[in-house]
Amino acid sequence: MSIDEVLADALKLVKPDRAEEAEVEALSRMILDRVGRLIGSEGVEAEARILGSIAKGTWLKGDYDIDVFILYPPGIGRGMLTDLSIRIGVKVFEDLGGRWILRYAEHPYVEGWVKGVRVNIVPACRSKPGSWITAVDRTPYHTDYVRRMLPSEEGRDQVRLLKKFMKGIGVYGADVRIGGFSGYLCELLIIRFGSFIDTLRSASKGWIGLFIDLEGYYRDVEDARRVFGDQPLIVVDPIDPRRNVASPVSLTKLSEFTAASKLFLDKPSIEFFNPPSIRLDTDLIREAIERRGSTLLAIVFDEPAIPPDTLWGEIYRSLKAFVNILEKWEFKVIRSSAWSGDGFTAFIVELESGMLPRVKLHRGPPVDSPEASRFLEKYTRGGDRVSGPWIDGDRWYVARRRRYTDVYSLLDDLPRGDLPSYGFSRDIAASIARGVKIYMGTDLLELAGRSRGFSEHLYDILDGRPRWLRFGFIEDTPG
Amino acid sequence: MSIDEVLADALKLVKPDRAEEAEVEALSRMILDRVGRLIGSEGVEAEARILGSIAKGTWLKGDYDIDVFILYPPGIGRGMLTDLSIRIGVKVFEDLGGRWILRYAEHPYVEGWVKGVRVNIVPACRSKPGSWITAVDRTPYHTDYVRRMLPSEEGRDQVRLLKKFMKGIGVYGADVRIGGFSGYLCELLIIRFGSFIDTLRSASKGWIGLFIDLEGYYRDVEDARRVFGDQPLIVVDPIDPRRNVASPVSLTKLSEFTAASKLFLDKPSIEFFNPPSIRLDTDLIREAIERRGSTLLAIVFDEPAIPPDTLWGEIYRSLKAFVNILEKWEFKVIRSSAWSGDGFTAFIVELESGMLPRVKLHRGPPVDSPEASRFLEKYTRGGDRVSGPWIDGDRWYVARRRRYTDVYSLLDDLPRGDLPSYGFSRDIAASIARGVKIYMGTDLLELAGRSRGFSEHLYDILDGRPRWLRFGFIEDTPG
Repeated sequence: MSIDEVLADALKLVKPDRAEEAEVEALSRMILDRVGRLIGSEGVEAEARILGSIAKGTWLKGDYDIDVFILYPPGIGRGMLTDLSIRIGVKVFEDLGGRWILRYAEHPYVEGWVKGVRVNIVPACRSKPGSWITAVDRTPYHTDYVRRMLPSEEGRDQVRLLKKFMKGIGVYGADVRIGGFSGYLCELLIIRFGSFIDTLRSASKGWIGLFIDLEGYYRDVEDARRVFGDQPLIVVDPIDPRRNVASPVSLTKLSEFTAASKLFLDKPSIEFFNPPSIRLDTDLIREAIERRGSTLLAIVFDEPAIPPDTLWGEIYRSLKAFVNILEKWEFKVIRSSAWSGDGFTAFIVELESGMLPRVKLHRGPPVDSPEASRFLEKYTRGGDRVSGPWIDGDRWYVARRRRYTDVYSLLDDLPRGDLPSYGFSRDIAASIARGVKIYMGTDLLELAGRSRGFSEHLYDILDGRPRWLRFGFIEDTPG
Repeated sequence: MSIDEVLADALKLVKPDRAEEAEVEALSRMILDRVGRLIGSEGVEAEARILGSIAKGTWLKGDYDIDVFILYPPGIGRGMLTDLSIRIGVKVFEDLGGRWILRYAEHPYVEGWVKGVRVNIVPACRSKPGSWITAVDRTPYHTDYVRRMLPSEEGRDQVRLLKKFMKGIGVYGADVRIGGFSGYLCELLIIRFGSFIDTLRSASKGWIGLFIDLEGYYRDVEDARRVFGDQPLIVVDPIDPRRNVASPVSLTKLSEFTAASKLFLDKPSIEFFNPPSIRLDTDLIREAIERRGSTLLAIVFDEPAIPPDTLWGEIYRSLKAFVNILEKWEFKVIRSSAWSGDGFTAFIVELESGMLPRVKLHRGPPVDSPEASRFLEKYTRGGDRVSGPWIDGDRWYVARRRRYTDVYSLLDDLPRGDLPSYGFSRDIAASIARGVKIYMGTDLLELAGRSRGFSEHLYDILDGRPRWLRFGFIEDTPG
């Protein structure tokens, strides 16, 4: 298929039909009215507005939340703003007979469900640009900006294609777990590059160091770097010159977008927008684990009960600390990843081998350094010495016994009570201290049996390729 | 024992007694007379002189050659000089009923044995300094210089102590195999530092970068480095400003001298001068090999029939090439060494392990580089791929199969006919091409049975320490 044919098909996937648009319109209006009336009965000078992708007309077909903002005058106190909004939000959902839940971002808001649609009732202040009070005060300005810059349906459809593509390849979402592209960032990219395909053409050449400043706040990229440091991608928020809309985007996700763009332009396929689901087969996964010859292991503990972005920040930090411990003891880490959900969190690591040779070469100090005496005292006789010390070039060397020749004994020795001093986050360290299980090789199938999500993650790491690199030739066995 | 007591004992080891001095004197005179007469009968205008350590009075008790030089006028042709000297040399030994042999340095000379003493009859030219014709034309000047600068017996005894100490710790000898300190260099060091003990005190602080220029030819060390580059030790020849007397000294031998000096000053012992011999015990060596857990292997081939300095230059070069091959395939080399003698040459290598994991992490190109496409073509499906490729940061990675997981299969695959292209020298490559045997672990005992020298070398590498680091606590088992 040609790119044009694929894009035509993709558009059918992402563009809501008239019925959906009418439904969204009606539902939004109904909730907005109710919120407006409740504001009135509370007697505050606030205004309710629909913001976000519904307001901008960039939501994906069949995949939307309704974001209702209650905008207060800047003078209002934080406590007042929160209390009022929760009261109003809860009342709306109670009146409509919908379930609801309190969510916590920077401050609490109410998330509820009406006719199967998720509705967020979010408080914010009508701040002046630059004098932001809450983190979401920019949202009305973002909505207005995108509406002004993308007035036509064509432009909004290009945003939809880009979002769907990014979802399909796994780089969509500014949350900590994904570390990818936000919806607003997609909109700004389309404003900058004009179309989905021109965005991909640009990205396929590599975006590390790319600098986008739609409103021309900065003289040049060096000028901007004085504010943003050396973040790989800088997209200045048109609403706030001090904010990089692309700051959540990790180097890896940026690179994945580049690589996937390149591949799509080369071999366009609808699968980038609509990836096939994984066919799981326990026997094939077992076989893949047994065949590979490396050592796959996981440490598994109860998922800490903290908000997702906090959790994933801690997970990535602690996973890095875990890998550092393994590498400090010279286990060669092929790849590490984390999974969390269904009540548990797992750090999964693949090692070249879980066994190391008994003996290692240990480089000592220069012969003429003050440390030489201590080195000789330690290694000339006994202790961990196997042979030596000897001199090579200007240094002492010794062949010594390895402390850990087997990863299991290293894991067994981890100081469960003292993990924060190794760089583990507090909540993760606490959960590990309460209880941790180690799974090696095919033991992991036990976890796979407990969680579909974990199974898919396991399949993905056994195969190793990003899913979009498998499109067109999904095989029956991972790895 | 105090240093003074040890030095007093050492002096008894190194200083010839009156009887030996008289014997040396008489033998030298007798041979000099005969050579002188033969020169006369040949009708050339040449002069015979005793040079070297006998002439300088710095030979070690019971350990000397008599170096008789025939000094020709510079105008003589090379062929003439060689022919005449061989004729004279051979005649001297034939007349005295001694055995002799032709040796090759830069040009041939005659080595013979008279009353159990080795006598070298060496041709040289009476060149003006700076207009050297043969490599040994400097020798008469060296002899004269040392006699002038070390006129007293005390100074010459200090040289003897230094030479014996260096012999004892294995750093004496400017030949390629040792890569250590020449006798002349010892003499210059005593001239510079005044005494044995002050030489060691200086050396113990580290001599890398030391610059000695007794005749003040250079403004400073930077000036000298323009001629000598960054050799670790520069001792300008008082006879020839363009020659670094210390150029044969390897960084390792220099460092060994520093470390041994430090240890001697700290714990003086006569064993530095007179190291105890190794007690070999095959069972203990076998046990040491079996216990250590690393992989010891040797490749063994016929010793090429070439002069020792050429041989050892080739050995070191080829050993390095061999180690490079092992390391290229990721075998971790703890230590490598060579042994040659009794008809065979052995490269001995100790590896952390002779086995490697089946899978390795392979770092690919940056995602936005032109190489990325080729990488993906190669690794996305099949081939050596185990899992991946995936993106981490700005690069592609893949987990792939290792070509060699076992050192034996690597050695088996060595292209016997093509070793020079891997950096092996020609003679060594040729010998290996004619036949090579691989010995692993306790197989090495078979070689030990064939050669006492190899046994000692094997003992030394199993123990790993320089012998002087074992003084005072020689244990029964190496390693």
